[in-house]
Amino acid sequence: MDSAAAEAMREETDSLGVVRVPADRYWGAQTQRALENFPIGLERMPPALVHALGVQKLAAARANMALGSLDRAIGEAIAAAAREVADGALDDHFPLPVWQSGSGTQTNMNANEVIANRADEVLGQPMGRRTPVHPNDHVNRGQSSNDTIPTAMHLATLLELRDRLLPALDHLGHTLAERAVTFGDRVKSGRTHLQDAVPVTLGQEFGGYAAQVEAAATRLRRLTDDLLPLAQGGTAVGSGLNCPPGFVDAVLDAVRALTGLEVRRADNPFAANAAHDVFVDLSGALGGTAAALAKIAGDIRFMGCGPRCGIGEVMLPANEPGSSIMPGKVNPTQVEALVMVCAQVQGNHVAIAHGAAGGQMELNACKPVIIHNTLQSIRLLGDAARSFADRCVAGLAADDARLADLAGRSLMLVTALAPAVGYDRAAEAAHKAAHEGTTLREAVLTLGLMDAEAYDRVVDPRALALGGGTEVEPGG
Amino acid sequence: MDSAAAEAMREETDSLGVVRVPADRYWGAQTQRALENFPIGLERMPPALVHALGVQKLAAARANMALGSLDRAIGEAIAAAAREVADGALDDHFPLPVWQSGSGTQTNMNANEVIANRADEVLGQPMGRRTPVHPNDHVNRGQSSNDTIPTAMHLATLLELRDRLLPALDHLGHTLAERAVTFGDRVKSGRTHLQDAVPVTLGQEFGGYAAQVEAAATRLRRLTDDLLPLAQGGTAVGSGLNCPPGFVDAVLDAVRALTGLEVRRADNPFAANAAHDVFVDLSGALGGTAAALAKIAGDIRFMGCGPRCGIGEVMLPANEPGSSIMPGKVNPTQVEALVMVCAQVQGNHVAIAHGAAGGQMELNACKPVIIHNTLQSIRLLGDAARSFADRCVAGLAADDARLADLAGRSLMLVTALAPAVGYDRAAEAAHKAAHEGTTLREAVLTLGLMDAEAYDRVVDPRALALGGGTEVEPGG
Amino acid sequence: MDSAAAEAMREETDSLGVVRVPADRYWGAQTQRALENFPIGLERMPPALVHALGVQKLAAARANMALGSLDRAIGEAIAAAAREVADGALDDHFPLPVWQSGSGTQTNMNANEVIANRADEVLGQPMGRRTPVHPNDHVNRGQSSNDTIPTAMHLATLLELRDRLLPALDHLGHTLAERAVTFGDRVKSGRTHLQDAVPVTLGQEFGGYAAQVEAAATRLRRLTDDLLPLAQGGTAVGSGLNCPPGFVDAVLDAVRALTGLEVRRADNPFAANAAHDVFVDLSGALGGTAAALAKIAGDIRFMGCGPRCGIGEVMLPANEPGSSIMPGKVNPTQVEALVMVCAQVQGNHVAIAHGAAGGQMELNACKPVIIHNTLQSIRLLGDAARSFADRCVAGLAADDARLADLAGRSLMLVTALAPAVGYDRAAEAAHKAAHEGTTLREAVLTLGLMDAEAYDRVVDPRALALGGGTEVEPGG
Amino acid sequence: MDSAAAEAMREETDSLGVVRVPADRYWGAQTQRALENFPIGLERMPPALVHALGVQKLAAARANMALGSLDRAIGEAIAAAAREVADGALDDHFPLPVWQSGSGTQTNMNANEVIANRADEVLGQPMGRRTPVHPNDHVNRGQSSNDTIPTAMHLATLLELRDRLLPALDHLGHTLAERAVTFGDRVKSGRTHLQDAVPVTLGQEFGGYAAQVEAAATRLRRLTDDLLPLAQGGTAVGSGLNCPPGFVDAVLDAVRALTGLEVRRADNPFAANAAHDVFVDLSGALGGTAAALAKIAGDIRFMGCGPRCGIGEVMLPANEPGSSIMPGKVNPTQVEALVMVCAQVQGNHVAIAHGAAGGQMELNACKPVIIHNTLQSIRLLGDAARSFADRCVAGLAADDARLADLAGRSLMLVTALAPAVGYDRAAEAAHKAAHEGTTLREAVLTLGLMDAEAYDRVVDPRALALGGGTEVEPGG
Repeated sequence: MDSAAAEAMREETDSLGVVRVPADRYWGAQTQRALENFPIGLERMPPALVHALGVQKLAAARANMALGSLDRAIGEAIAAAAREVADGALDDHFPLPVWQSGSGTQTNMNANEVIANRADEVLGQPMGRRTPVHPNDHVNRGQSSNDTIPTAMHLATLLELRDRLLPALDHLGHTLAERAVTFGDRVKSGRTHLQDAVPVTLGQEFGGYAAQVEAAATRLRRLTDDLLPLAQGGTAVGSGLNCPPGFVDAVLDAVRALTGLEVRRADNPFAANAAHDVFVDLSGALGGTAAALAKIAGDIRFMGCGPRCGIGEVMLPANEPGSSIMPGKVNPTQVEALVMVCAQVQGNHVAIAHGAAGGQMELNACKPVIIHNTLQSIRLLGDAARSFADRCVAGLAADDARLADLAGRSLMLVTALAPAVGYDRAAEAAHKAAHEGTTLREAVLTLGLMDAEAYDRVVDPRALALGGGTEVEPGG
Repeated sequence: MDSAAAEAMREETDSLGVVRVPADRYWGAQTQRALENFPIGLERMPPALVHALGVQKLAAARANMALGSLDRAIGEAIAAAAREVADGALDDHFPLPVWQSGSGTQTNMNANEVIANRADEVLGQPMGRRTPVHPNDHVNRGQSSNDTIPTAMHLATLLELRDRLLPALDHLGHTLAERAVTFGDRVKSGRTHLQDAVPVTLGQEFGGYAAQVEAAATRLRRLTDDLLPLAQGGTAVGSGLNCPPGFVDAVLDAVRALTGLEVRRADNPFAANAAHDVFVDLSGALGGTAAALAKIAGDIRFMGCGPRCGIGEVMLPANEPGSSIMPGKVNPTQVEALVMVCAQVQGNHVAIAHGAAGGQMELNACKPVIIHNTLQSIRLLGDAARSFADRCVAGLAADDARLADLAGRSLMLVTALAPAVGYDRAAEAAHKAAHEGTTLREAVLTLGLMDAEAYDRVVDPRALALGGGTEVEPGG
Repeated sequence: MDSAAAEAMREETDSLGVVRVPADRYWGAQTQRALENFPIGLERMPPALVHALGVQKLAAARANMALGSLDRAIGEAIAAAAREVADGALDDHFPLPVWQSGSGTQTNMNANEVIANRADEVLGQPMGRRTPVHPNDHVNRGQSSNDTIPTAMHLATLLELRDRLLPALDHLGHTLAERAVTFGDRVKSGRTHLQDAVPVTLGQEFGGYAAQVEAAATRLRRLTDDLLPLAQGGTAVGSGLNCPPGFVDAVLDAVRALTGLEVRRADNPFAANAAHDVFVDLSGALGGTAAALAKIAGDIRFMGCGPRCGIGEVMLPANEPGSSIMPGKVNPTQVEALVMVCAQVQGNHVAIAHGAAGGQMELNACKPVIIHNTLQSIRLLGDAARSFADRCVAGLAADDARLADLAGRSLMLVTALAPAVGYDRAAEAAHKAAHEGTTLREAVLTLGLMDAEAYDRVVDPRALALGGGTEVEPGG
Repeated sequence: MDSAAAEAMREETDSLGVVRVPADRYWGAQTQRALENFPIGLERMPPALVHALGVQKLAAARANMALGSLDRAIGEAIAAAAREVADGALDDHFPLPVWQSGSGTQTNMNANEVIANRADEVLGQPMGRRTPVHPNDHVNRGQSSNDTIPTAMHLATLLELRDRLLPALDHLGHTLAERAVTFGDRVKSGRTHLQDAVPVTLGQEFGGYAAQVEAAATRLRRLTDDLLPLAQGGTAVGSGLNCPPGFVDAVLDAVRALTGLEVRRADNPFAANAAHDVFVDLSGALGGTAAALAKIAGDIRFMGCGPRCGIGEVMLPANEPGSSIMPGKVNPTQVEALVMVCAQVQGNHVAIAHGAAGGQMELNACKPVIIHNTLQSIRLLGDAARSFADRCVAGLAADDARLADLAGRSLMLVTALAPAVGYDRAAEAAHKAAHEGTTLREAVLTLGLMDAEAYDRVVDPRALALGGGTEVEPGG
């Protein structure tokens, strides 16, 4: 809002008195008080939460109308305004920081006030009079911040998982799997402990990455079931005081219709207001996803280390100049962005866990910090996974010559001899070759462990990578 | 081991040469090297992992015998020794610290060496000759540390969850539910933001606690499915090199028979060696459990705050003198132990997440730190939950007089008036009573919001707690 | 920027080619590429870092002019533009997300491009031609992202600590100390383990809080010394390639003059580019501060628990309506905002520690995530501490009657008897009084441990709180 | 203790009654109750804390004797027994878990009981009678757990820092510095973003590592000052009740004499009992140290990646066989142990921060979890740093041929041209060489950017690494 607009003010009231608010904003007295009482940080309540709150208010209005507990004209005006909130059209009217009341009461009141004023406007009435539409008595009817905010937290999380993160993980999994097919059976040196190991194929590696991502998505998908039970109906403390019969079922019906989510009523409404343990589980699973992505990203950075002085098994796409001082440099910037996102997700988890442990009696009063970090983790992982897939993985190319060159040098092919000659004599051959700078083949033949024909039959890197145990005849 | 025993030494060898080890210990050269190379900290590899490794080695011996790839006499001797490891009879022969090779290779070799020497002893042969039973060629046949250690990690975790943590959570859940029944419908002041709120019953509160614990157990139970796929068969890098056909199926059969766990083969053996993302998810869910337990414990401490200068709604059992200087003091020590355990579990998560993100190429080389923290979290939560149930929750008593006294004082009963008189006028009554130090009833009558008869009908704490919204006639 | 402006575009170029950018923005091709390549999350690079980068660029321009390595007209134009960046006038021209290149190269180039274009404009030339002022050759002269970004990170952190957090902590410390004086020697029940303990005064408690805050500020103040050494001069890898002699000293002189900070050259330029360990220490100290603030906030919430059904020793100011459903409710919302901030700071630490451990060879490529979390923690603690001081602590009032009532009930006054009668007999008296519901005095007299006159002399709550050990005559 | 010994029991009493304890143990009734009440986990209270508690009890006995408040014979017997505790001779008599009373009361009582019984034994009296030496009235005289345990926490931490961690860091710093000298000016490719960058020397890299470790040690050393103020004298709540005049000064004198630590009295005794914020700062600094060590370890693993298929710039010492299946494999196991230790330290921090934020009113009741994690982090870092220095860093060798080969290939030498020809044309040369697979020199000459003589003068890798900016003539 520009300064001229800020100067045009109107009066709003709440139970503590009169407050002046910007004339071009729909919010009311309580929102304005909160703006002035919490001048903390730069982080606003997440838009995805605001949109979910719009869905919840819209569903509540429909429920109240269905139950006959709201005048239909008022109810329809509320529903129209709530839909605008849900659609993101009124984001600029939700200015409150994360750092506010731990129940999110001020954001619930922000929604109540914006919707009431906008509904009054829809009805051709001036804002700020709390009539015909009252933020508490009408918009918030049958609700409390203490059940509404957790309901919106669950909805926002479910929608962001379904619509942002899971599709992005699927996309990354597919992109990795596609690379696995493309890279196929190019044999390369395996590495364990970052030291030369027995051979694998580049396709096997990318297949492993795809499997990690797919497994992470599967685990997250299943965990979303735990978010479907909603707190709606518990009102202030879980007892459901002032929530009329039939209200919850009607709200749930409307939410299902609006979102396609198979939400249901929380089994225990007291726990639903007072505890958000499931967000810790979820955040832990986001951390598992982050661990997978960080590992994959790190491997790609490692294999792309070069172009001339490193590993150079794969070549990264050049998306931008990499250095302000070194001309021509190209860096694995998508890897770095993703790695930083993964670090943030691990940090966010700690904030969530602190918050979740911080409930007291009938309320967990750390709701905003929990949902802020949860939605941030989901968004960051989703956005970064998609960007990484499109701007890094999809553009990876294999350096065939380099892969073959390195694969041929490894002494770890000696492992294939162990079943035949025993671990100790095989180790002797490897040490000899390492010490003398020869090939393994030379060392084996010199030591007389095998003849050349047998060696060449057993020690075939491609067969070792692809065949696994099937080619090996175990000894006694 | 005492110092005299330590002085009696025997010689053991490995591929790097000869090493002297204590004569009365079964371990061999590589274990001894590791003992000397990693003089770090006080934390040993967890017994539960060692036992699971015994199960895995026993299953591998059976599989090798079934496939004909192990001489039966050797195989049976290995199986007998491995069973002793599985049963915990040889714990004193596993001296290695957590802080060792990141693959756990040294602990795998510790198992191979102990089992080989013990098997040689069973066969009437001297220790240290690596014959007739060789630690690598026989005990480790068809295996690598890189698939064996993850297999043992999964088994240990599954067993500890099934046999320790989940029964303890069930027990705590039942104990809380039993208290909920006992405390029943004693009405009390609800508290949100730790401030007086509308009434609840003590039974509702404990029912909420029971629900939290049961939900945490349910989530953990479902998550154990993710641990059933085992890395066995991938050997060094996931390719299965040196793992004979049929070996994995035979191992899995044996593990199922030995443990009752419905284990299966990991879908992608490369990911199974290189990634332990699922441990982050699991640890996150342990963190969700910890958040639940910390919240419950904190509430009980709060309600038990007293005996004379605090809340005093419930009375804690006196398990021990509480103070070295204040005679007669009794403290909520089970609460404190549990709260500290919960803090540790949140810390352990960060170590696990760091470790899980630390994989490189074909190996995650942070396996010991991952499993150490995982098993510690499981054990701590299990032990502390059980102790808390038995020594705190089961002994809680309600102070009926105190509960009733406090419940009667609350001004928040005003909430029940809001549907009838509107939020703003109800607030006015509450402010008036607070300001003038009167009861809410007086303020309401003075303001003429309701007559006495209507007030007494609507504002019935017990009905408000138990009836929820059902008693309330919504206004327009 | 509105959509009409977005549609007016101009062409910019970099070493990879031509890019279209919004016509009304000063940024160039590399910034635009980064905007398109990193569509990740909502978090922009922190304004405080951008401003510090302005300071650094201004200092570099002065240094280059002083050394004669920049044409003066170009140098002055750069200096003028850089000052606008430093003053925050061009914040809207720094659109890049935190999640970008791990070196912050894109933000360095954002600064180079904005300053170059703005300098061209100052010189009456069109934007986008990279002449007469070139972003790399002139604005970035003698610099690399790899030394410039860490320099700006240190400067931003130092300035935010000095100008935001430390004054806020001082203010909170003073406010708490002022409350300590006001509350003075009101005697109250001490509480350990949240159970009744020997008496203290409310002034002692607030004095303790003030001491915690002052100690935290002292520790942070001292730690800022570790941030004074700057990476400037190491350029790309620490070796100082392309950094002309005299440049660093001239930059440091200018920075000192501009900021008043006694910055100096990092002892080891290689470590300065590659490692940011000190940010972990700093974040740990911010965590120590957060622990202090969370403890103080929690205590105030506990003492303010009420108004009628809790502890009620102190009364919190009513800043806003507390509930959307419970009229007249007032909540400790400043406490809650602060507690959530403290949780976030602990989470941010983990992200910082992950990032700091993530350096590789000549560069730590997690710079943005480190500085984002560092500056967020500083800002949140500073803003929340100030708000808590002004809107909660300053408005706290003591309830004298309640304090005195509770203090008189405690059985823990028995402690004062232990030196005279021994711990065991004192414990017997406390247990007797607790069991029989009598006062301690009655129990002591009944047991004949002391006569009434001696009891009243020894057991004086006020003397026990204030006199400490000085009144007590130790026995044998 | 073996089972026969366990069966021989004696009776002990405390204020709650009679308890049976093992006859061969010095502990008494409260310790035994705690053993039975806290069957949680495997983690015992750290030996370093027990030893520090011995120091504190010895100092208290001396102080009580000096003040005449303890009979000298009793005092001397207590002193003798306390010295045994301090010297570690009675470690087997401290069986309690970390997970106990949050004040550490049970461990304080464990010390009081062990010392009383041992003192009785010294005096020729039977154990278990609490006379002539009483655990509370004599050993604990003038003390409370609430000031004694924090005092011991500070002492243990100071001693472990001074005697274990700081010498180990110094040793590692020296070892790295010695390698820096040995490796000297071997030129190699720098790497930023893990991509080829301008040259450095191997000595510069190790010099940077040494600088990181030295800086970490310096920061920790300075931070120890914050631990010198001791809580001693505050007794139960900070007021000093039952602590006789002169006691604290006498205790501090004795502690200084016994330890050489310049301890002093905490400025605010209330804060000293109730808050442990400084442990969060300390743990943060241990995290900074861990970040440094993890970075250094990771670099060495990266440079040692090979032996044949990786980077191979340095060669790691072979300390043990690396694989149970791959004969001849050598792994960077010291790196891995250190990296895992660093992960644990970051996790421990979170547990400490949780614990430190968990204080309530006059007591932080998370003392055991704070000190357990603090001392574990210190020990792990100290042990692992020393082992890493001796078993990895000291044995590192450079592969001169490999270093020179890689250094010669880099295209990033182009950076040296930028001041002369401009960033954009230099980038063009680098891209041309990369695209066409030629050397940079060829590309530069082909493009006519410089003649051969000028190129060879400017692009001298050794000069670029060592000379930094001094050789470069800046252009306009």
